[in-house]
Amino acid sequence: MARFRLTLEYDGGPFAGWQRQQNGPSVQAALEDAVFAFSGERVTAQAAGRTDAGVHALAMSAHIDLSAPRRADVVRNALNHHLRLRPVAVLSAEETDETFHARFSARARHYLYRIANRRAPPALEAGRVWHVPGPLDEGAMDAAARLLVGHHDFSTFRAAPCQAKSPVKTLTALRVRREAGEVVVEASAPSFLHHQVRSIVGTLVQVGLGRWSVADVAEALAAKDRAACGPVAPPQGLYFVRADYENI
Amino acid sequence: MARFRLTLEYDGGPFAGWQRQQNGPSVQAALEDAVFAFSGERVTAQAAGRTDAGVHALAMSAHIDLSAPRRADVVRNALNHHLRLRPVAVLSAEETDETFHARFSARARHYLYRIANRRAPPALEAGRVWHVPGPLDEGAMDAAARLLVGHHDFSTFRAAPCQAKSPVKTLTALRVRREAGEVVVEASAPSFLHHQVRSIVGTLVQVGLGRWSVADVAEALAAKDRAACGPVAPPQGLYFVRADYENI
Repeated sequence: MARFRLTLEYDGGPFAGWQRQQNGPSVQAALEDAVFAFSGERVTAQAAGRTDAGVHALAMSAHIDLSAPRRADVVRNALNHHLRLRPVAVLSAEETDETFHARFSARARHYLYRIANRRAPPALEAGRVWHVPGPLDEGAMDAAARLLVGHHDFSTFRAAPCQAKSPVKTLTALRVRREAGEVVVEASAPSFLHHQVRSIVGTLVQVGLGRWSVADVAEALAAKDRAACGPVAPPQGLYFVRADYENI
Repeated sequence: MARFRLTLEYDGGPFAGWQRQQNGPSVQAALEDAVFAFSGERVTAQAAGRTDAGVHALAMSAHIDLSAPRRADVVRNALNHHLRLRPVAVLSAEETDETFHARFSARARHYLYRIANRRAPPALEAGRVWHVPGPLDEGAMDAAARLLVGHHDFSTFRAAPCQAKSPVKTLTALRVRREAGEVVVEASAPSFLHHQVRSIVGTLVQVGLGRWSVADVAEALAAKDRAACGPVAPPQGLYFVRADYENI
């Protein structure tokens, strides 16, 4: 058996999320079908992040196991050939050992959230950004973001169906900056709760619009109550950037 | 009568180009239909560049004339409302005088061409870049680009149906650089010939792939012969960036 680590880029728009499911196309199923098409093997792909419907990936780490030996560049090219009608691309494939697990070996995960902050709706970036027409104060958003960095009970920013054992997580970085007409939020943590980034971004946007103060965010965090969260940001602005592994 | 200068962003993918035509949807028709929908006036929109099918715009300058007085922000918002199902957005609208003509007053036009230079096909940027999988030598491309800057007979880089009176044009800037997995070509001139940027980019890519030398490009320019041109680059990587006007 050979294990291959894959790095994937995908447009989450047409997918019901990473995970294989009954009610719609998934990135996992597209990848697993492509593996079957070129190798005849039915595999289960594992990924660093199980992104939701509509969420994109710039460099998702995943792995698959093949029983027949294959060259890594052949795996990459064959998968891209069979994925050519789907917005999923295999950026790289490399053979690795069985100690590597895309989900369980990941030490850090990085997300990016893009907000088109202008009056006009996005024409070129439709489906790739959240359109917030009112002017955002990115300085206030960044000040509120700093309060959330660290080891906290994030119950306020956790979706009801979240399967994590504990709502306590360590947010290692959360930054807000303006870049070419967009307000961009970057978030890093060893792992995230379900909808955590979108819940945080939605809350920070309330601060950016002047509806919430920075202190309101501290209070919402302290409440440890889902009801204290701002409106959850939509999926199309969210990107899984990359996962970090030890020695990689 | 009031003249409004509009700045437009559009995804050229679903359009047969800027110009209104029989055989497909055009950006011009989409805009003129939106003007009619909100004002009841049938206008002819003029633009700084008549982009081809599939070519995008980041900030196209255009103008329309309305007989009834309107507030500029109302014009912008009403057009965006009526364009909401099309990938065209009005970034800004401002009232101007009749001496302003989006096409004839433009002193310079700027284009950008994006090449995804990697083995994997683009997933997120499909339809927004030209995918060239072989490694490009952007230094050689930039050296060849420098030969084309200036006042030249560009017959080699001119499409057969070009309506310009003369093939002699002044290319004021042509630069090639690598940026985050892409090779980007920037071109500026007072005006361009039909397919000039795409013809130049296609030729520079031959240099980047090592199939042509820098000297071959000088020879192609000197030939003043369409047959000496490299393969024309596809439209989806091309962006009209902006037009410059006097005192603006």
